[in-house]
Amino acid sequence: MELKESLHQHPSQPRSKNEKQAMVNRLKRIEGQVRGIQKMIEEDRYCVDVLVQISAINAALNKVGFSVTERHIKHCVSDAILSGDGEETIEELMDVMKQFSK
Amino acid sequence: MELKESLHQHPSQPRSKNEKQAMVNRLKRIEGQVRGIQKMIEEDRYCVDVLVQISAINAALNKVGFSVTERHIKHCVSDAILSGDGEETIEELMDVMKQFSK
Amino acid sequence: MELKESLHQHPSQPRSKNEKQAMVNRLKRIEGQVRGIQKMIEEDRYCVDVLVQISAINAALNKVGFSVTERHIKHCVSDAILSGDGEETIEELMDVMKQFSK
Amino acid sequence: MELKESLHQHPSQPRSKNEKQAMVNRLKRIEGQVRGIQKMIEEDRYCVDVLVQISAINAALNKVGFSVTERHIKHCVSDAILSGDGEETIEELMDVMKQFSK
Repeated sequence: MELKESLHQHPSQPRSKNEKQAMVNRLKRIEGQVRGIQKMIEEDRYCVDVLVQISAINAALNKVGFSVTERHIKHCVSDAILSGDGEETIEELMDVMKQFSK
Repeated sequence: MELKESLHQHPSQPRSKNEKQAMVNRLKRIEGQVRGIQKMIEEDRYCVDVLVQISAINAALNKVGFSVTERHIKHCVSDAILSGDGEETIEELMDVMKQFSK
Repeated sequence: MELKESLHQHPSQPRSKNEKQAMVNRLKRIEGQVRGIQKMIEEDRYCVDVLVQISAINAALNKVGFSVTERHIKHCVSDAILSGDGEETIEELMDVMKQFSK
Repeated sequence: MELKESLHQHPSQPRSKNEKQAMVNRLKRIEGQVRGIQKMIEEDRYCVDVLVQISAINAALNKVGFSVTERHIKHCVSDAILSGDGEETIEELMDVMKQFSK
């Protein structure tokens, strides 16, 4: 399912500096977890332990995804609804939710 | 659901050098994608574009997970079945599959 | 994660008769598919064929879920945002999206 | 991803009468839950309550799927491995696991 070109370049209300730093820190931890798996593969660690780590990263990424989604609905989608053209933004949101659920 | 201590330290048949390098390269690409999302957050990129990238990483991680799972079944699980104690290894596999599906 | 008591008893804008019938027909087909699996179990059909049917039902249910979600956002969530109390309704939506993704 | 024609018609070791009845009963409960959602739609119940029910059915179906998968690995896959032609059966298992994860 190809996602249409997104409607905007930027969120209607950019994150504060602290919000940004908190999100970047979460992503840096995930980056470190991915490096950790590389090491497990190099050290021939047991497959089940590798799989447990992969599912931990998936869970961490899903949390980041949900927090981006919540912020998107509270700002971009809400602003579009308040300015009378929510339909397209809601359909864009549904497209990305369907992609996320795969 | 807490996963029991895994039954082994190492896969019954370690990966070849090439297999390892191919897997580490895939993980390095995923690491790069995670860094890419950090940049998108810093540049206040549109939330939907960030979400599309997160779901792309999830998809790439799932592929790595399936290839580790397939290798695990073809080696560790098969060897355990052939040596007559497959029951525990199969239950360990089911536990991690359930964790993965969350 | 326990979902809080939902905020409302009824959608802000009930479905038309046709909309209702279309949705009930989809659910009746899913009901028939579930009965089909009972038959497969009774006839000792091959496990992989049973699993393929179960994942087809999951896919059909997910489609119903997405269409209920889209309608919910276009009506109940949008109406709450327009009347100035979108925050709680958005958080309720996020809770159910997280439950759905398990 | 089209699943290849499954390798067998029947499980290598059919379920006992009790096993079958327990599985059919679980599926009958799921069937009842699907009918319950039809009623919620007809009664214009709040969308979030409908979504909670759909995710409950998904969870029940996933449990049935895991129990069919576990039985399949313990019998059909194990028997194929023990008779020296596990490769194809494992690949068939991986195909259906990938389909399930969508």
